[in-house]
Amino acid sequence: MEFETIKSDIQALLETRNMQGLKVLLEEWLPEEISLLCESLNLEDQIKVFQCIDRDRAFLTFENLDINDQKLLVDALPNRLVALILNDMSADNRTALLEELESEQLNKLLKLLTKKERKIALSLLGYPENSIGRLMTPEYMTVRQSWTIREVLEYIRENGESSETLDIIYIVDEKGYLIDDIKIGEFLLAPLDEKVSELMDGKKVSLLVTDDEEVAINVFTEFNRVALPVTDSHGILLGIVTIDDVLELAKKEDTEDIQKLGGVEAFEEPYMEMPVFKMIGKRAPWLIILFLGELLTASAMAYFEHEIARAVVLALFIPLIVSSGGNSGSQAATLIIRAMALGEVTISDWYRIMRREIVSGLVLGLLLGVLGFTRVAAWSMFTDVYGPHWMAIALTIGFSLTGVVLWGSLMGSMLPLLLKRLGADPATSSAPFIATLVDVTGLLIYFSLAALILSGTLL
Amino acid sequence: MEFETIKSDIQALLETRNMQGLKVLLEEWLPEEISLLCESLNLEDQIKVFQCIDRDRAFLTFENLDINDQKLLVDALPNRLVALILNDMSADNRTALLEELESEQLNKLLKLLTKKERKIALSLLGYPENSIGRLMTPEYMTVRQSWTIREVLEYIRENGESSETLDIIYIVDEKGYLIDDIKIGEFLLAPLDEKVSELMDGKKVSLLVTDDEEVAINVFTEFNRVALPVTDSHGILLGIVTIDDVLELAKKEDTEDIQKLGGVEAFEEPYMEMPVFKMIGKRAPWLIILFLGELLTASAMAYFEHEIARAVVLALFIPLIVSSGGNSGSQAATLIIRAMALGEVTISDWYRIMRREIVSGLVLGLLLGVLGFTRVAAWSMFTDVYGPHWMAIALTIGFSLTGVVLWGSLMGSMLPLLLKRLGADPATSSAPFIATLVDVTGLLIYFSLAALILSGTLL
Repeated sequence: MEFETIKSDIQALLETRNMQGLKVLLEEWLPEEISLLCESLNLEDQIKVFQCIDRDRAFLTFENLDINDQKLLVDALPNRLVALILNDMSADNRTALLEELESEQLNKLLKLLTKKERKIALSLLGYPENSIGRLMTPEYMTVRQSWTIREVLEYIRENGESSETLDIIYIVDEKGYLIDDIKIGEFLLAPLDEKVSELMDGKKVSLLVTDDEEVAINVFTEFNRVALPVTDSHGILLGIVTIDDVLELAKKEDTEDIQKLGGVEAFEEPYMEMPVFKMIGKRAPWLIILFLGELLTASAMAYFEHEIARAVVLALFIPLIVSSGGNSGSQAATLIIRAMALGEVTISDWYRIMRREIVSGLVLGLLLGVLGFTRVAAWSMFTDVYGPHWMAIALTIGFSLTGVVLWGSLMGSMLPLLLKRLGADPATSSAPFIATLVDVTGLLIYFSLAALILSGTLL
Repeated sequence: MEFETIKSDIQALLETRNMQGLKVLLEEWLPEEISLLCESLNLEDQIKVFQCIDRDRAFLTFENLDINDQKLLVDALPNRLVALILNDMSADNRTALLEELESEQLNKLLKLLTKKERKIALSLLGYPENSIGRLMTPEYMTVRQSWTIREVLEYIRENGESSETLDIIYIVDEKGYLIDDIKIGEFLLAPLDEKVSELMDGKKVSLLVTDDEEVAINVFTEFNRVALPVTDSHGILLGIVTIDDVLELAKKEDTEDIQKLGGVEAFEEPYMEMPVFKMIGKRAPWLIILFLGELLTASAMAYFEHEIARAVVLALFIPLIVSSGGNSGSQAATLIIRAMALGEVTISDWYRIMRREIVSGLVLGLLLGVLGFTRVAAWSMFTDVYGPHWMAIALTIGFSLTGVVLWGSLMGSMLPLLLKRLGADPATSSAPFIATLVDVTGLLIYFSLAALILSGTLL
């Protein structure tokens, strides 16, 4: 509420180009709050805001913007300001921006960096996309195990300014090999004359620079740390990853998974900010692919047209049967895809998963089968809608439901594992995709059973 | 790999009841690693492990276990050990366990707490479920603004032991009102004789104790902090929430949302650990509800049985049309539910969302409509499968597809907003649920259009 009133004050100042007033007002704000404000302003006003805030907060405000806003701003802000911001930014956030740029713009920006920062930026960009190397920052504090606590605290006071965090201090040997990580709290609680080596427990958790960034999420969730050290395969300390970046990453990855599961390509922007036609472009491909897949149902049914003409009653249950298969497939796919993302199951568990899904699919199938049978039987008690062969029809519906639900559970659980095995993203086997696949096969199950059970009576 | 070999050593020690050997081996491990080990052991072996580790690591190991394992252990471990663990545990993790217990077990455990810890536990349990009060811990470090940095560091050294984190220090006045929060790094970098008040910028971010825990996730994502202070509505500091708990919570909430979107009730346990019949219990209710909903399609179609009998060709396209509507509904629902969870859209945006979805639905619908029309027309060029009235059929299919996709997008986007408005969880309007709803209405659209366009020719 308060934020909204201040925002309208700011709007007024921007319109009258009262830069001095703007400066005074923004003085009171946190960088994160100025970023929030910027996100509701157009580019021109964003530039004015950046010209009004001091250097110490400019880069923090910039870091908190969406990558898309950052891209527009580095093109629009004066070079002098861009240079200050880029050099001040923490290396991990800068990498996140640089990796999104076209090579021409990238080269232009790299030239604005100081020699030292350019070297850091280039080395971080050298790690594979989505690797932990791209997430890390080389700004951390290391000390030696032979120092006293007093020496450590003095060293931090003199050299700690540029470190991304002082919450955790790293112990390395003269070759840069990571020996231990110790929380700042332990230094603060220990007697000043004690040696660092007395605080060490030799138990460290570290990330490998080439590992996938999803590993970082799982390790942070498992071990309660606010930052984790990153080493190469020899154990040499290269950088650190902080938990705030990981929280953001976890949210982003989950959003991508959810969108893929819903049959949409992952959005890079919030729903409301994405232009409508760009959004349609994210939805159309899957909708068309699923449509083309679903066209097979029309072909499959054309094959059974004769049966349908002779027993129209069969057509009545088509949506019921195909969607029951689709629903059970969505359930199984969702569970397995999420369990894989959380590291709870891996491909090697496929056999155990299959066994579980056969049991579940069979029980759930029988449940719906009995319900379907009962529905037809019950209606036939009081009406004549299903004719004299109602029992055969009821059996066809019951068995078909059991079959498609079992089949749906199996397909839904095995397909994500298969995709993963083939190196694809399992979330691509979205719920609608599984449902469509099960629709086509479900029709085959239904009409085959119908031919078997109803032959001689209705067919 | 290494972990696996050690694990088999441990198994051997457990089998031979070599407690001394176990003790020596576990000495080398981090609490989080011992928790991981425990999760692969049966309860009996878990008890042996807990009897072998020292007090300092017992409670940390315990904290890292799943709530379900914790529940079993507090029943099985000797009271003396349970008392030590419960009193040592951080208050937020303890609350997470206590709130899951039956009242009888809860009372038993509360009696094991010291007077001080029992008071803390009861006050935290007094906050509403899923509120920030349940997440917070009252163990933090406060200082006064009149102190010098030297005094602060001495105070921390003497009193910091019991604080959950020393990464952030809180400034309060004599009434306990929160004035500011300052990172430990700033104290470490400042001259020892400076006053705390000189470090303060008066810009603080805090959480309200009664807010929903989802607010905490969003504030942590927005503001880069490792801990946030929690106050009552007057601004009195009550506790802190740390980011590691929030990362875990974010993962858990996303898992719940994903499972609900897939049409499954939220799992409290990992996929593999949940007993098969318990899992079936999580899947059956939604599958049955959707089945009952889908039964309406059979009723709707019985109403059109006469039309189907006269034009069997209509039946061929039923799965195609209903599933296209369902898919577009799943897409829209997924996007809106996720955007709401991330705080990107709120109920008050409904009109703008509706406008966007009408445009998207219309464009996507026309796209599929043209494809559907083309399919029927193209087949009719070369075969006689659709008879002399193929043009009328093609038009029926085309218009129906446009209609159901538009309808699906609208329902998929509006229903989650409506559910939220009614105080329900929007994720309950899962993708399969929307799909089922759109199936029934899609059939009505299809057959109504067919009656309109084909009357006089086929019907």
